[in-house]
Amino acid sequence: MEGRGRLAIIGLGLIGGSLGMALRRVGGWEVVGYSRSKQTRSLAVKLGAVDRAVDTLEEAASGVTVVILAVPILAMEPILAQLGRLLLPGTLVSDVASTKAQVMAWAQASLPPQVPFIGGHPMAGKEVYGIEAAEDDLFLGCVYCLVPGPSASPQAVEQMLSLAEAIGARPLILEASRHDELVAGISHLPLVASCALMSLAARSTLWPEMAPLAASGFRGATRLASGSPEMSGDICITNREALLSWLDGYIQELRAYAGLIQGGGEALRAAFLRAKEAREAWQEGKRKGG
Amino acid sequence: MEGRGRLAIIGLGLIGGSLGMALRRVGGWEVVGYSRSKQTRSLAVKLGAVDRAVDTLEEAASGVTVVILAVPILAMEPILAQLGRLLLPGTLVSDVASTKAQVMAWAQASLPPQVPFIGGHPMAGKEVYGIEAAEDDLFLGCVYCLVPGPSASPQAVEQMLSLAEAIGARPLILEASRHDELVAGISHLPLVASCALMSLAARSTLWPEMAPLAASGFRGATRLASGSPEMSGDICITNREALLSWLDGYIQELRAYAGLIQGGGEALRAAFLRAKEAREAWQEGKRKGG
Repeated sequence: MEGRGRLAIIGLGLIGGSLGMALRRVGGWEVVGYSRSKQTRSLAVKLGAVDRAVDTLEEAASGVTVVILAVPILAMEPILAQLGRLLLPGTLVSDVASTKAQVMAWAQASLPPQVPFIGGHPMAGKEVYGIEAAEDDLFLGCVYCLVPGPSASPQAVEQMLSLAEAIGARPLILEASRHDELVAGISHLPLVASCALMSLAARSTLWPEMAPLAASGFRGATRLASGSPEMSGDICITNREALLSWLDGYIQELRAYAGLIQGGGEALRAAFLRAKEAREAWQEGKRKGG
Repeated sequence: MEGRGRLAIIGLGLIGGSLGMALRRVGGWEVVGYSRSKQTRSLAVKLGAVDRAVDTLEEAASGVTVVILAVPILAMEPILAQLGRLLLPGTLVSDVASTKAQVMAWAQASLPPQVPFIGGHPMAGKEVYGIEAAEDDLFLGCVYCLVPGPSASPQAVEQMLSLAEAIGARPLILEASRHDELVAGISHLPLVASCALMSLAARSTLWPEMAPLAASGFRGATRLASGSPEMSGDICITNREALLSWLDGYIQELRAYAGLIQGGGEALRAAFLRAKEAREAWQEGKRKGG
């Protein structure tokens, strides 16, 4: 594949590291990585996540065509401010944060109009994190949300679309607010529901007796509670309104189930059947590539 | 292994079928199986879940040493009533239902005092069900709850303990009401939480846009919604009070998280950290065989 220039990944955790591995497998880019942690930088080189690691943001910003931010959400604002002073006109900037409206606003405030920003969110992840968990095929088949900022030219959008496709993802262009509303329901609400289940159980005086009995069902339902507390916090803070609205709906739904359980009988069974059918229809749709 | 006599399994789904396979692997028992469905009976023989299948409950009850009921919970009452008239004194009866107080009461009302009943609940399962999903190692390492009824002699208890151990499970004797309270928290609440998440999302007008974005996190958090609606209904109805109390606690916990999200900052992150640490401590305990 022809040379595409230099691409810098800022932040080398699970997503940043996996992105580096995936892009290096595709070839064509010189992948440069930056992390605050020296140990992570060494590991990134050792694991093949980057062609080389640099020690400063200045070095990362030097001579690059594309910059992708893969740091925790709340760390993005100061980095975008620095990049705004460092990047040459025409450099494409993107990110991988789980929420988009806040990051888009920071990018618009910090980057000059000649530096196009396209928000990104590859819908892939694991409850383990850190570069040790990175994989070059993490994005295969996943939806990669793209939110073009006001300064993004059609060419810049084209460039991000082809980058997402190159790593095997399915790019989807949408607006920041719509993105945040959708992922609040399918991603951030499940996260909070999972954490609440774990913390409620563990705080019970019965927990010492419950813990040995808890098995695969409990493990699956609480899996998201093992994610990074920092990332979970950042997500909730930067997607507060949409998440609170979904949480409110969830509490109402649980109350409705409580009413059905109180009543017993066919209406309860019918509710369980509807939930099962909805899940099967969704999984069937996913299998068909929907 | 010496001959232990004939053991009948009533109901040949995931648990009944797996139990048959596990006991046949252990050896010593003649395993006889009964299912209402002719197709399931043939399949049970073909898959090696039973030595032979019988067409009636009368045949299943004839000449047996142990009977294990593995039918849906609400189907247990009429079967226990029939068995009460069919079984010879000294026959040990057990079950595998997910809730115990109701089944214990039915057994006491239906079985003569000379027919000991020991409620059982192997804490193993999958969201798929039916004999097609049965496995001979389903119970390896799982906790097998045992609730001796008032007519159960020490010898009968010893017999169930050794049966559970023979299939690789870890037997745990406890009271019916305590069992139901514990599993309401670790098993039945996660089930309802999972179904509520699925039904809330699927009912949203945004669902057509959300569905393609939903990935592994949503899949894991809604997995229990794919279980049998009949079984889920039976569980809720026969463990109503304990489950409603846990549901109430869960709604309060979600409200507390909503408050933390509203506030943002360190308290929110600390809550996520506590949930993560609790889950890790639990998993660590499980690894150590706790």
